[in-house]
Amino acid sequence: MSLSPAVVIGAGLVGASVGCALTKAGHRVHLEDRNASHVQVAAGIGAGTSEPAVPDEVRLVVVAVPPAALAAVIIDALDRFPRATVTDVGSVKAGVLNALWDSGGDVTRYVGSHPMAGSQFSGPLTAQADLFHDRTWVIAPHRKSSAAATQDVRDLVAACGANEVIMDVDIHDSAVARVSHVPHLMSVLMAGHLNEVPVEQLQLAGQGLRDVTRIAGSDPDLWEQILGANSAAVLPELRAVQHQLDTLISAIESDGTAGAQAHAVLAHLERGLAGTRRIPGKHGAAPVQYRQLVVEIPDAPGALSRLFADVAQAGVNVEDISIQHDPDRQVGYLSLAVAPDQADALVGSMTDAGWAIGDSDPSSDSAG
Amino acid sequence: MSLSPAVVIGAGLVGASVGCALTKAGHRVHLEDRNASHVQVAAGIGAGTSEPAVPDEVRLVVVAVPPAALAAVIIDALDRFPRATVTDVGSVKAGVLNALWDSGGDVTRYVGSHPMAGSQFSGPLTAQADLFHDRTWVIAPHRKSSAAATQDVRDLVAACGANEVIMDVDIHDSAVARVSHVPHLMSVLMAGHLNEVPVEQLQLAGQGLRDVTRIAGSDPDLWEQILGANSAAVLPELRAVQHQLDTLISAIESDGTAGAQAHAVLAHLERGLAGTRRIPGKHGAAPVQYRQLVVEIPDAPGALSRLFADVAQAGVNVEDISIQHDPDRQVGYLSLAVAPDQADALVGSMTDAGWAIGDSDPSSDSAG
Repeated sequence: MSLSPAVVIGAGLVGASVGCALTKAGHRVHLEDRNASHVQVAAGIGAGTSEPAVPDEVRLVVVAVPPAALAAVIIDALDRFPRATVTDVGSVKAGVLNALWDSGGDVTRYVGSHPMAGSQFSGPLTAQADLFHDRTWVIAPHRKSSAAATQDVRDLVAACGANEVIMDVDIHDSAVARVSHVPHLMSVLMAGHLNEVPVEQLQLAGQGLRDVTRIAGSDPDLWEQILGANSAAVLPELRAVQHQLDTLISAIESDGTAGAQAHAVLAHLERGLAGTRRIPGKHGAAPVQYRQLVVEIPDAPGALSRLFADVAQAGVNVEDISIQHDPDRQVGYLSLAVAPDQADALVGSMTDAGWAIGDSDPSSDSAG
Repeated sequence: MSLSPAVVIGAGLVGASVGCALTKAGHRVHLEDRNASHVQVAAGIGAGTSEPAVPDEVRLVVVAVPPAALAAVIIDALDRFPRATVTDVGSVKAGVLNALWDSGGDVTRYVGSHPMAGSQFSGPLTAQADLFHDRTWVIAPHRKSSAAATQDVRDLVAACGANEVIMDVDIHDSAVARVSHVPHLMSVLMAGHLNEVPVEQLQLAGQGLRDVTRIAGSDPDLWEQILGANSAAVLPELRAVQHQLDTLISAIESDGTAGAQAHAVLAHLERGLAGTRRIPGKHGAAPVQYRQLVVEIPDAPGALSRLFADVAQAGVNVEDISIQHDPDRQVGYLSLAVAPDQADALVGSMTDAGWAIGDSDPSSDSAG
């Protein structure tokens, strides 16, 4: 079943990467973007052509524009390309669908989707055909989606080398509310509270604060669009967290007045610990407890290179890595996560090479 | 002014490191710990002697035991060592002090302190004399602390090579509540909510969720002690965040019904962004906006080594680094933070060496 010719609307990283993957799979791709330079760059790296498509011939349209523009662009695409299946790659699905119901357009040809990849880079320059290779790509048909349209999107996902996950629209939106949007808001609340903290007190901040608040540094305009599109799914989750916060505050207020209340605070802490263990590990595998090793490393050009050369010499695969900067000293601490059965070999080899290496508590915080 | 002989009670990482620093500075140190093997290990690396001190001779006692045990051990130390200045390295100060007032002991010889270092490692094995070198060490005298006792603790901080910060007990406790304890609880609340999320939905989790929930993986028993000791300072901060959460929920509920309300959500997001920018940068410097570059890196032994060798070849200093694992693919993405004026040189050099390197949005989340 051919997807040619296809149109990709929005030639940013995700759109251009879809174009590259479809082109590589032998399909003809026409690129559109309000920003003409994006189309040129994307065409230059093999994402498709900047020439306009013949509307009646188009078989597939992939809409990859910012959240707030999605519904209007999809409605317009259903109208402009009367024989095409139309999908999008937006991170929220229900709101767009509601707008489509009201539009009077041929919604049977629309099937939403959401590739779990892409926003780490931005712009078409870093687009690549294998961006979605082996990634999860959620397909969210609605009750009037035609079987043919759903099949076209499945073919798109297959052409991009991604792993399809068919998910109900509401379940998808609830899932991203839980694993992405609510965590984002918790980070925002914590970071926002720092505006009340005197600067001299912020000198006591450690890595834990930096981790919790990192994603609050994201573009507020983009997130306003995402949250506006998913408020129905975000609200019940946020209210559940609000309830937990209320009970936590009550537990802390009562702490020390009764033994049973102290256990209420501990119960929150243990519930949090249990929650962290539910997050899947690397490569979608079950959570693995890696052994965390810590090496002190001078803050100088070449030091990391020498360190990793010595790690490589040990023949050990580093599963994860992070650097915690000392706020005052010219050194950092490098945490290396390795499989438990490889840790002793690495410690021996690194010690022989002159590094100070030891076990760490991966979750502790120097400002604790 | 001599601090010899000194006694260190609690030979974990922090206590043993204090012992090493004092020993290196020429002072005699006696080590105590409920765990005899900790004393042996600490003595073996030069932290002091396992032989008991002569009580009347002891000039300084450093108490480095878990939070819940602090007050009792300090009271006992004031009694056992009648001529010694007694300090502790606990992360919360007011509760201990209140217990001391009630004890009837000689509180004029007690001055609390808090070195901002140490809990990244655990146990005496990785103790080192320079653990506190150039780190912040808060000294928190109380209204009855003698000038001589305060001077002894200042001498201790100087002997450890740390930078003293004299801070009121209540201000210290409020500061750690804001930059450490409340962030910890926000992480715990978010992680705890994951217990309500079906496992298949957690497959959509990205790096943002992992960052926000990382410190919730810490030891619940230790944190129950910390929070119990600092509930008075934590509660008003937590209530302020609770209030912000309430207004955020109201803003999201009203979103779409009035233009002004949409701006309320945006205001929260912008307040969060502003908060992240207040956190001091590396080495206590003012916050710096580094340029974030991203390199795709195969998940294989030696790949990181080759990558860093090429980074070193470029002669560019890497300011910060993180790896985001693709949950499904056998690759990772390595983010490199470099000074803006060095970024183009690095991109050119790395591209020449065959790496796919590009700018990234450091705060974006693939699950967004």
